[in-house]
Amino acid sequence: MASSSYTNSPCAACKFLRRKCLADCIFAPYFPPEEPTKFANVHKIFGASNVSKLLNEVQPHQREDAVNSLAYEAEARMKDPVYGCVGAISVLQRQVIRLQKELDATNADLVRYASGSARPPSQYGRRATTASVSTRHHSGLSFLSPLSSSHHDSTYCHDKEEGN
Amino acid sequence: MASSSYTNSPCAACKFLRRKCLADCIFAPYFPPEEPTKFANVHKIFGASNVSKLLNEVQPHQREDAVNSLAYEAEARMKDPVYGCVGAISVLQRQVIRLQKELDATNADLVRYASGSARPPSQYGRRATTASVSTRHHSGLSFLSPLSSSHHDSTYCHDKEEGN
Repeated sequence: MASSSYTNSPCAACKFLRRKCLADCIFAPYFPPEEPTKFANVHKIFGASNVSKLLNEVQPHQREDAVNSLAYEAEARMKDPVYGCVGAISVLQRQVIRLQKELDATNADLVRYASGSARPPSQYGRRATTASVSTRHHSGLSFLSPLSSSHHDSTYCHDKEEGN
Repeated sequence: MASSSYTNSPCAACKFLRRKCLADCIFAPYFPPEEPTKFANVHKIFGASNVSKLLNEVQPHQREDAVNSLAYEAEARMKDPVYGCVGAISVLQRQVIRLQKELDATNADLVRYASGSARPPSQYGRRATTASVSTRHHSGLSFLSPLSSSHHDSTYCHDKEEGN
């Protein structure tokens, strides 16, 4: 359940909107008074009415995740008005492709080495380092893949730590 | 520059909002009448007023990217009201970590093999496959890293194809 700060204080949303915080306030469980910026951000980016509508459209047990994802997006958009969190997607997509290429190349090296046609072992070990420092560059949205159902369907797993 | 469909038709935004599309319409260059859904989505998720404010806050040359990232986020949120495009970030972050682990392990195998203590070569080559099919599972937002300045600063490169 969400942060349950049902005190006498109005929630951050009602305080921001200068209205009375009623017992059934849709915002209260997710916007505690101690986190005023969380609501201010989602209000600025999405608007209080849109957030309220969205919360009413999802199941009660999904509302905390919904609010947290909205807060994440809103914070990203405040920090980067042009790309918002889509910039992070672009960075990560590039990183996945780069790592996959590195992995394919390392596997190919391994096979070559095993077959006896490889170069000296001193070259190995550099790839992991190369890949791990390559997160700071990306090219706007030109690289972004279209939305795919595998990323955006509603069959998300809710396990806390997926096995490898 | 954005899709420049300055015809006699009102832009998709003005048509949706049932208002006259003036020559200096802030939406017109980015919401052509042929793409009505693009505006409908950003209107539903962010609100026309917020989109207009955001466009006025960024430089004219950044507006097309800003609109496209908003449209991407809006579409993601329509498809997945709980996680929106933050779901994709979670998937990609897991994928990066998994690939990095695979790469580290493969490099370690390579070093072991080179030093003469490795197992037979038949085991090699499976890792790339394992990693590449592991994109469909993630665990809500529990796995999401906090926003970092490396992903969200304003120093994005605008090169179309970054070198590897």
